[in-house]
Amino acid sequence: MNNNKKITASILIIGNEILSGKTQDTNLKYLGLELATLGINLVEVRVLPDEEDIIISTLNFCRSKYNYVFTTGGIGPTHDDITAKCVAKAFNRNLLVNEEAVKRLMSNPNKNYELNEARMKMATLPSGANLIDNPVSYAPGFNLDNVYVLAGIPSVAKAMFETFKHKLETNDPIESDSIDIYLREGDIAEPLSIIAKKYSYVDIGSYPFSKDGKYGATIVVRGTDKELIKKVIDEVFNIMDKITS
Amino acid sequence: MNNNKKITASILIIGNEILSGKTQDTNLKYLGLELATLGINLVEVRVLPDEEDIIISTLNFCRSKYNYVFTTGGIGPTHDDITAKCVAKAFNRNLLVNEEAVKRLMSNPNKNYELNEARMKMATLPSGANLIDNPVSYAPGFNLDNVYVLAGIPSVAKAMFETFKHKLETNDPIESDSIDIYLREGDIAEPLSIIAKKYSYVDIGSYPFSKDGKYGATIVVRGTDKELIKKVIDEVFNIMDKITS
Repeated sequence: MNNNKKITASILIIGNEILSGKTQDTNLKYLGLELATLGINLVEVRVLPDEEDIIISTLNFCRSKYNYVFTTGGIGPTHDDITAKCVAKAFNRNLLVNEEAVKRLMSNPNKNYELNEARMKMATLPSGANLIDNPVSYAPGFNLDNVYVLAGIPSVAKAMFETFKHKLETNDPIESDSIDIYLREGDIAEPLSIIAKKYSYVDIGSYPFSKDGKYGATIVVRGTDKELIKKVIDEVFNIMDKITS
Repeated sequence: MNNNKKITASILIIGNEILSGKTQDTNLKYLGLELATLGINLVEVRVLPDEEDIIISTLNFCRSKYNYVFTTGGIGPTHDDITAKCVAKAFNRNLLVNEEAVKRLMSNPNKNYELNEARMKMATLPSGANLIDNPVSYAPGFNLDNVYVLAGIPSVAKAMFETFKHKLETNDPIESDSIDIYLREGDIAEPLSIIAKKYSYVDIGSYPFSKDGKYGATIVVRGTDKELIKKVIDEVFNIMDKITS
């Protein structure tokens, strides 16, 4: 619906704990907002189990289809953390101890641990990987080609993304504005559809809500042209005003 | 890792508002917990934009690959609600006014509306669709073959799922138990890996946390055999106890 779809992305959320409903994912909401702000079109998100075959095949599909792939989860020291191994296999690379990653793990000022075999796993990365800094807990993420591998813990995923987001190739930022309409969606759908057809360079979404027993919908207008968005919001307001009066 | 993978499922979360980070999805957590309780193996979840091509192709892929596909979102009256149309196209069926769906829309005791064209859209479904009752807001979901189409609003999605979940084909329920270990993951990874290898009929996950400045990990053991899960949890406890003492 808009003209801002050149740079595309997908996110792979890796972890049985998300699929089993044990953990509420919040990384999608954070990354979704960030990518929209950068003007990168997030086309799809997949939540995957800790299973090698499905991670590798999905990674290979998405990295060939989209400009960027961001993964979250599965880069810790335990047996169920298999993301680095899967990325290596997907790219046909060896897993090697990355000396710079070892240094970073050792640089943790709060560390009171030895670099045992499990922790060394966090520094064992696909050959040629570029490290992504982890200002929170030091074990780095990594980047290979168009794939960015982040931690699953939201504070760490966020801190990692912050370190490289300014380097990503972007489109014009996607702006948005919204207006709450206290009418049922069934009453606004037809005029809204006419507006949506008229302004095909913006995306118009309608999200129903019920607040204090009153039905309504938030109308969200998204696009790259701030002036146009304002114009569409005004038109939505005016038409809805006519319906209620 | 476990022997309980016969009945499989995927969830398609449909809506630009989830991808743009505007709305936090919570349906995955609810459905993930329910499916696990039923013993249905949720293999993957995809979050998709309101775009016909990607919804249709994903739906066709998933309905041929998994026993069940559950979709959420996109069944309201506005122009961006295109799920019913996409399901019809995926199944090569016509979209028809479903008289029973019309009756249900009219049966809403709180209704103070006419069945205008937009609302009729909510009763226009793929031919042969079975209705899914909506005890919250009356506009029904629907089922076609192994695809179950639910609303996006969490309270409605939940109410719809509750109406048919007892009819789904299930495996043995997946049970789980967990234990919090106040050690860093890097210190427990090796003994945990030995336990995971020893008990291949359960899934053992490790999820790091930081509470009140103390690092730890929640160890979750999942499987169909309650006794075995208890045994594994005891073994995790004993081994961790040895490390700390």
